[in-house]
Amino acid sequence: MTAIEHFWAVVPAGGAGTRLWPLSRAAEPKFLRDLTGSGRTLIQGTFDRLEPLAEDRLLVITGEAHRDAVAAQVPDLPSEAIVAEPSGRDSMAAIGLAAALIERRDPDAVLGSFAADHVIADDAAFTEAVGAAAEVARDDWLVTIGIEPTFASSAFGYIRLGEELAGHARAYEVATFVEKPATEVAEGYLATGEYRWNAGMFVVRPTVLLDLLAETDPDFAAALRTIAAEPSRLAEVWPTLPRIALDHAVAEPAAAAGRVAVVPAALGWDDIGDFDSLAGLLEDDAVDGVTVLGDPAQVRASAARGLVVPAGGRLVAVVGLDDVVVVDTPDAVLVTTRERAQDVKQIVADLVASGRDDLV
Amino acid sequence: MTAIEHFWAVVPAGGAGTRLWPLSRAAEPKFLRDLTGSGRTLIQGTFDRLEPLAEDRLLVITGEAHRDAVAAQVPDLPSEAIVAEPSGRDSMAAIGLAAALIERRDPDAVLGSFAADHVIADDAAFTEAVGAAAEVARDDWLVTIGIEPTFASSAFGYIRLGEELAGHARAYEVATFVEKPATEVAEGYLATGEYRWNAGMFVVRPTVLLDLLAETDPDFAAALRTIAAEPSRLAEVWPTLPRIALDHAVAEPAAAAGRVAVVPAALGWDDIGDFDSLAGLLEDDAVDGVTVLGDPAQVRASAARGLVVPAGGRLVAVVGLDDVVVVDTPDAVLVTTRERAQDVKQIVADLVASGRDDLV
Repeated sequence: MTAIEHFWAVVPAGGAGTRLWPLSRAAEPKFLRDLTGSGRTLIQGTFDRLEPLAEDRLLVITGEAHRDAVAAQVPDLPSEAIVAEPSGRDSMAAIGLAAALIERRDPDAVLGSFAADHVIADDAAFTEAVGAAAEVARDDWLVTIGIEPTFASSAFGYIRLGEELAGHARAYEVATFVEKPATEVAEGYLATGEYRWNAGMFVVRPTVLLDLLAETDPDFAAALRTIAAEPSRLAEVWPTLPRIALDHAVAEPAAAAGRVAVVPAALGWDDIGDFDSLAGLLEDDAVDGVTVLGDPAQVRASAARGLVVPAGGRLVAVVGLDDVVVVDTPDAVLVTTRERAQDVKQIVADLVASGRDDLV
Repeated sequence: MTAIEHFWAVVPAGGAGTRLWPLSRAAEPKFLRDLTGSGRTLIQGTFDRLEPLAEDRLLVITGEAHRDAVAAQVPDLPSEAIVAEPSGRDSMAAIGLAAALIERRDPDAVLGSFAADHVIADDAAFTEAVGAAAEVARDDWLVTIGIEPTFASSAFGYIRLGEELAGHARAYEVATFVEKPATEVAEGYLATGEYRWNAGMFVVRPTVLLDLLAETDPDFAAALRTIAAEPSRLAEVWPTLPRIALDHAVAEPAAAAGRVAVVPAALGWDDIGDFDSLAGLLEDDAVDGVTVLGDPAQVRASAARGLVVPAGGRLVAVVGLDDVVVVDTPDAVLVTTRERAQDVKQIVADLVASGRDDLV
């Protein structure tokens, strides 16, 4: 009923999620976990959202190491819909390869790329936004979905809206993409009403995407089309591809050239970037002031507020701490605060540096 | 060389130590644990300190449940030196029974009673203080050792010094015992120089102790002497004994009657009453601002201060918290602050109330 004709959903499933350590691990990253207590992992939730729109036109690009886990978690996905990268080479290579594969299979295709590890509360608004974006993309725009900001986040990049797009009621040109700002700067952005969060959601015709890439890096675009034409050359060609984000490789230069459009939308979106973000998402489930992700019977709190994740089979007791984050797993326990949640990645770096790769 | 003639060391080994949960458990209380990282448990440290003074004149009074553990930890102790209480009936019954047993075996005895779960940094000062106290005790005083306060603690009772004792250079009469004061009141005590901490260390001739008890509760004293004379009646008589601390049963009324003396001493004493106290004791071992009791390789800290006890075989990471306390054990994790350390007992109470006796 809500399917979009010739719409292909591309799901890059990567990223270590080190700020969510020790929940997120190299061997079991964020997208393979149920971080919201919904009973579905993040990648399962992503496909639940995309299948009605794309039907069987689904592609996931993930690391070789996660191919089996993805197949097990999304059993409906045929094996040819899982593209395994020999190594992580950032989003341009991943989404670009998907574009090159789809380009060969469906000349009328519009692809939409959506990370495997984000959450969206309002599925109906998402469906509507993707539908609108696909319409704009058919006119050869690179289209992004711009999330209506709900607070002055310093953790996200922003998109400044330009002129309304002729012929598309809900869309605007992208004036510019802005890197993560300081909180005070972000407050200024919100006050203007002209900024949206950049959630990394792109909707575009595969050929448009690859041709935009070819304008700045023709070898890169050619290499992606080579792999799509001769899949047996993947292992040989892949390591030669640049490590670069799609934003930098294509979206920013194209925006400067007036070729990127944005469909604004309020989706209840979050990238669950750290435990502060996770605690905010789960806040409604607070018991005695402490938000629990897991079995509340395994938590005891006294005069405490924050997030407790009892994922180690042990009882977790918290006494007299404000906005604390406690994550218990079978081999590691993290204790931090919501305010310092971004710094968890330092622990991961330190573990790697000290040879404790077994824990990351 | 330092042995004191006819000196008997009595070691009550009881107390749940609920404020040290989850390190201290009903099945393995504080005195059976090495809480200082010295390689010796608290009861072993206590006997290390007392054996040179008492040689083989040692008695430990402990719960039936802990008899075997005490025997295993202090293998030099002959089995008849371990008196197992059928049930916990507080310190008057425990020390009183020891007094009654010793009274029958050595008419010239002086006993000194020292809890199994305290620490003393200065063994030489302890030896000297006990020697001085024993001299005073031979003149039929009930003698306590008054610890020189090092800060205005609200966690300890105090002893106010009275007149100097004629004929004993280092001793004073006890003017009065004071219950745990508020911190401001304790500050006033320290300013006067007249107050010492009450560490519950008593040195006394067994007959003097039992006769003092008999003045206020003749049946209690008689019952203790009955058990000593007929040990087979322990199980029958013990449950009839009052549950009362020696301080209330004997020391306070005797002080009011001018019959208690105090030997002041600076011992580096601590009762390790809670994790704040434990953190203070271990502070010199701080690594990157975090004090570790256990293997420092199992701890990672970033911008953190406090105490971490990695006793669960897991890595413990702490990010951005001040004066935090993290105690990891195989089945429970506690996160609190040094300031709220006293409130840990509420968690234990809550666990008991909710049927999780397996964890206490």
